[in-house]
Amino acid sequence: MIKTAIVGATGFTGSELIRILLQHPQFEITYITSESHKGSSYSLIHPAFKGRFEQKLLSVEDLSKHEVDLIFLALPHGVSMHYVQKFSQWKAKIVDLSGDYRLDSPTTYESWYNKAHSFPEAFDYAVYGLPELNRSLIQKADLVANPGCYPTAAILSLLPLADKGLLSNSNVFIDAKSGTTGAGIKPSDGNLFSNVNENFKAYKIAQHRHTIEIEQLLLGVHSTNSIQFTPHLLPVDRGILSTAYVHLGEVDQSTIDTIYESFYKDHPFVNIVDEAPSIKDVRGSNYCTICPIYDERTQNLIVVSVIDNLMKGAAGQAVQNANLMFELEETCGLHLLALRP
Amino acid sequence: MIKTAIVGATGFTGSELIRILLQHPQFEITYITSESHKGSSYSLIHPAFKGRFEQKLLSVEDLSKHEVDLIFLALPHGVSMHYVQKFSQWKAKIVDLSGDYRLDSPTTYESWYNKAHSFPEAFDYAVYGLPELNRSLIQKADLVANPGCYPTAAILSLLPLADKGLLSNSNVFIDAKSGTTGAGIKPSDGNLFSNVNENFKAYKIAQHRHTIEIEQLLLGVHSTNSIQFTPHLLPVDRGILSTAYVHLGEVDQSTIDTIYESFYKDHPFVNIVDEAPSIKDVRGSNYCTICPIYDERTQNLIVVSVIDNLMKGAAGQAVQNANLMFELEETCGLHLLALRP
Amino acid sequence: MIKTAIVGATGFTGSELIRILLQHPQFEITYITSESHKGSSYSLIHPAFKGRFEQKLLSVEDLSKHEVDLIFLALPHGVSMHYVQKFSQWKAKIVDLSGDYRLDSPTTYESWYNKAHSFPEAFDYAVYGLPELNRSLIQKADLVANPGCYPTAAILSLLPLADKGLLSNSNVFIDAKSGTTGAGIKPSDGNLFSNVNENFKAYKIAQHRHTIEIEQLLLGVHSTNSIQFTPHLLPVDRGILSTAYVHLGEVDQSTIDTIYESFYKDHPFVNIVDEAPSIKDVRGSNYCTICPIYDERTQNLIVVSVIDNLMKGAAGQAVQNANLMFELEETCGLHLLALRP
Amino acid sequence: MIKTAIVGATGFTGSELIRILLQHPQFEITYITSESHKGSSYSLIHPAFKGRFEQKLLSVEDLSKHEVDLIFLALPHGVSMHYVQKFSQWKAKIVDLSGDYRLDSPTTYESWYNKAHSFPEAFDYAVYGLPELNRSLIQKADLVANPGCYPTAAILSLLPLADKGLLSNSNVFIDAKSGTTGAGIKPSDGNLFSNVNENFKAYKIAQHRHTIEIEQLLLGVHSTNSIQFTPHLLPVDRGILSTAYVHLGEVDQSTIDTIYESFYKDHPFVNIVDEAPSIKDVRGSNYCTICPIYDERTQNLIVVSVIDNLMKGAAGQAVQNANLMFELEETCGLHLLALRP
Repeated sequence: MIKTAIVGATGFTGSELIRILLQHPQFEITYITSESHKGSSYSLIHPAFKGRFEQKLLSVEDLSKHEVDLIFLALPHGVSMHYVQKFSQWKAKIVDLSGDYRLDSPTTYESWYNKAHSFPEAFDYAVYGLPELNRSLIQKADLVANPGCYPTAAILSLLPLADKGLLSNSNVFIDAKSGTTGAGIKPSDGNLFSNVNENFKAYKIAQHRHTIEIEQLLLGVHSTNSIQFTPHLLPVDRGILSTAYVHLGEVDQSTIDTIYESFYKDHPFVNIVDEAPSIKDVRGSNYCTICPIYDERTQNLIVVSVIDNLMKGAAGQAVQNANLMFELEETCGLHLLALRP
Repeated sequence: MIKTAIVGATGFTGSELIRILLQHPQFEITYITSESHKGSSYSLIHPAFKGRFEQKLLSVEDLSKHEVDLIFLALPHGVSMHYVQKFSQWKAKIVDLSGDYRLDSPTTYESWYNKAHSFPEAFDYAVYGLPELNRSLIQKADLVANPGCYPTAAILSLLPLADKGLLSNSNVFIDAKSGTTGAGIKPSDGNLFSNVNENFKAYKIAQHRHTIEIEQLLLGVHSTNSIQFTPHLLPVDRGILSTAYVHLGEVDQSTIDTIYESFYKDHPFVNIVDEAPSIKDVRGSNYCTICPIYDERTQNLIVVSVIDNLMKGAAGQAVQNANLMFELEETCGLHLLALRP
Repeated sequence: MIKTAIVGATGFTGSELIRILLQHPQFEITYITSESHKGSSYSLIHPAFKGRFEQKLLSVEDLSKHEVDLIFLALPHGVSMHYVQKFSQWKAKIVDLSGDYRLDSPTTYESWYNKAHSFPEAFDYAVYGLPELNRSLIQKADLVANPGCYPTAAILSLLPLADKGLLSNSNVFIDAKSGTTGAGIKPSDGNLFSNVNENFKAYKIAQHRHTIEIEQLLLGVHSTNSIQFTPHLLPVDRGILSTAYVHLGEVDQSTIDTIYESFYKDHPFVNIVDEAPSIKDVRGSNYCTICPIYDERTQNLIVVSVIDNLMKGAAGQAVQNANLMFELEETCGLHLLALRP
Repeated sequence: MIKTAIVGATGFTGSELIRILLQHPQFEITYITSESHKGSSYSLIHPAFKGRFEQKLLSVEDLSKHEVDLIFLALPHGVSMHYVQKFSQWKAKIVDLSGDYRLDSPTTYESWYNKAHSFPEAFDYAVYGLPELNRSLIQKADLVANPGCYPTAAILSLLPLADKGLLSNSNVFIDAKSGTTGAGIKPSDGNLFSNVNENFKAYKIAQHRHTIEIEQLLLGVHSTNSIQFTPHLLPVDRGILSTAYVHLGEVDQSTIDTIYESFYKDHPFVNIVDEAPSIKDVRGSNYCTICPIYDERTQNLIVVSVIDNLMKGAAGQAVQNANLMFELEETCGLHLLALRP
């Protein structure tokens, strides 16, 4: 068994990692940490694990370098980088679920995250952990930067086009909608029940940090085109639906279908469909379902993609990356089916 | 008092008309009709009116031409046109809430609605009932085609730009999200609780009939540009949020603000704001709140607008139109505040 | 116009009072106070009032005794009593929406609220503000203790039985369910969206303070029977449904119906129905709808009642009380219809 | 592998059986049937299974007696009995998820279900499939009547008291609340999104068929006491919470705790807790979590229990029963964790 630590285990991403790993045949949860809840049994914080997972939460200071093979950092950006540095001399492989190493350089990071980067050295070896793009790099990586939730949905929906050079002639508009767990577990006005329930809004228009992550991955760093990314808050717990718009000019639906199907034919967690998917179809599973529709009237392509933000958008993808890093089957422990209804 | 009939009073639009008119100082509900529930007291069908509105539902055949000044047709498209014809020789003014007379011609209607039009003559005198666009025409009209719910939100969000000729150089992308009451009161797989709850999806991509309504109003019938309109289904009862994208090139936020504020300064139901609004802020009220944000990085304008689909998107706007048709104050009986939380 | 102050205007009860009073023909909102938001325009805190109510929030210290006829205290228990004392020498009449004066004595208060009472003198003249029980006392009162939300639903559902002496032979079980706005506007784990959404739970079993309020009103202070009251948290914004159980022995449905109908025949906000009501039927309105069903098999009576916790359970009832205190029509300004759907 | 057929595979119970069985190491899904969808691939009806389960739906007439070891009947009551009869000469063991064989006799069935029973002979050998009550009988059974969803939650919450004779002196009140999937997948006014969302109501007061199922199991058929059972409809997909009330007289909390813990100590799917549980804590899992609280003031016991109505309340319990019938570990294939958030 591969000894595994989860640093920051009490947030939504942490609890989802535990839900997966308790059913994973190779990764054994050796340490779970939380500074605010250290000493507590896990099911006291998350009663859904009652009778199933009663391990004690430790401080991250209690981790021992000799006893862990794999570390998931489920921490906020700006905090994670300190642990990447701290663990950089350990033998353990790291999957960082924060935004600290997703961008191309410390400079870009600093301009979009508005803070100095304390351990820029790791940019040299961090690998962007989107298996559908970087599978072979991930297999050799010691540090994987797990993609953002919105970028996972948005990039997967357009990657086949980028691969064919079809994004170079027009701007791209990505209108994305997410459930509230994407914003974390800490109570605030923004996730107060009566502010979210029966409600819907856009937020951080023209400013969200995931914009640059999507743009760098899809267009590269030197493009003159741009990605316009607008996130919205859905009154649901889980799920992201991304609707992307590209003006392609004259092409046809079957060409598009062939491009998408051939690009993803060896990727077990991507489904290409011809009817618009729902977020509930992937709730609790690691799938990304994509539906590209070409409008002959407008010559635009509209691509809808759905993921569970805590699974393919965070914990599921992190385990998929870890599987690759440890030469396991990519789908190992990730056969969880969607919960629907 | 102005004697008012509601034809098709038991759907969501009909019950919302009654909610408004019971508080309206000038329009008196004289007749309510329903073919499937005729003979029933209204509160038997809609228990929320218990003790407040017990009027009996009649057949539309029972209406008498001498006794009604105003008729709201709250019927499906394809059905409404027959009553427009039937009532065309009456003295009563008509507000038609269906899509039967919203487009520029019977030809366009037939191509988007896939059915022949049985009373095309009325296209000659029907007025598109968006008061912010056609106030003076509405004041003189005998037949008003009340706009669609999505078009109301989308058109209002871009009308100031169209007015300045700023939509002529680029395609427009409108990503809209609606609550389920937009799809009507009849049970189906599409509005089954467990299919909508905790869920979200796009539908009728590249095909929705509101596309042509928006395009004709914003771009005119001869434009070479197009509107790409994508509707989505929100897990809420009421509300539409439209997010529109236009590539404007170099301009600045304050110019945009001036354009929007001056265009709407005399329109009592439109608010221009600088923070993205929520659908719950207008739930139950007749307001449309609009937030235009210019992104200097991409030179795109993103415009978010919100309405209550049953109010400004249907019954509220219908009463606003009727107020104008009868020379009442435009806001008469429409002071209902949003219900929040 | 009657000059009215709302002390503590930014919570859910405060904003609901404003929603009502803006449509009330006699009560004019003269002052609104908030210590944490003083200086702000109201619509900055509650954007649903944008364009409709932009009054500035003041500190309670700014209130002037000569300029106010009516004060609503929308404050937490334990805080409210200090303002009852402070305003006790003013001419203004007071409606206190907290629990500070609802019980029969300071002693009972101290044992259920676990705190000393700082102004017990006002118990001598405070009137329990349930108009269906105390209408004539309220008309003469200077200080009204507005009932709790759960007690309003529960007491109204059993008051006709208590009046007939039918509660003296058996214990009573009240199983009540409330939307989240009953717990206030401050973010916490308890009202975090993902903890409430798709969820349901009981809380404060055998301990809730409303137990004693219900018991004193229905059974009196010397009863040997008891009320078992269990509150539950519904994943909705508004609404309380109370299901009450009493073993009556042999009786029949029509006797029960007569008892309920005759008791409430002169009370405009109570509807007696024979089909179980829904909370959404009264959402946004001041009605209490009650359905008593006698089970011949078990000889139990089951009584379901529904209210909107912010209306008949708080702000609506407060205005109903104020109407009585100022010799206005009891229903004045309270004709708001339910918002459904 | 044990060859398994699911008769009636497209409802909510059927799809939940498939979700479980796809992860079960011993039961192989050999046949799935649906009369209305025969010929379709399963994922066409339930897109959440896309890429994971594409088996074709057959007619029940296509089942062959030699090729199936286990049959789950996921059919409505009144229909199921015909297949119990049809399959009665086969070697296959049957778990019937309908209500057709849950009661003590055809006579009781006919009086509560208002229809004649077409195959009363099977009452002689049907076993009521609550493993916590009838484990050893189930192990030997050929036909198991899987308990109703409400009865599972209610009976488990009171079984330790019944076992000690503590239910013989007082009436019992059970106030239960269920998500909408309990009412099935067919669209109707009752499960229309806008009738359920933001809403809550009681239904079938004093009439629900689960009343007699609960009463027979807890009190026996000759008791002079009764069960008062009231179901309510929650605006959630899944979950039942039952709140039960019994007047016990003088006892204490620790005695109660001992009774519950010792009764359930060998039952892997029942958790006894001392803080009131939430339905979301068991969503998607087979657990029943029970919290008994004794109120010294009233000498009543209040017992809250939660289950997932599709799991422990239907498909999960059916698989638990089948495990016992085939001498597998009781928990085999049932380790699914709750999905929370």
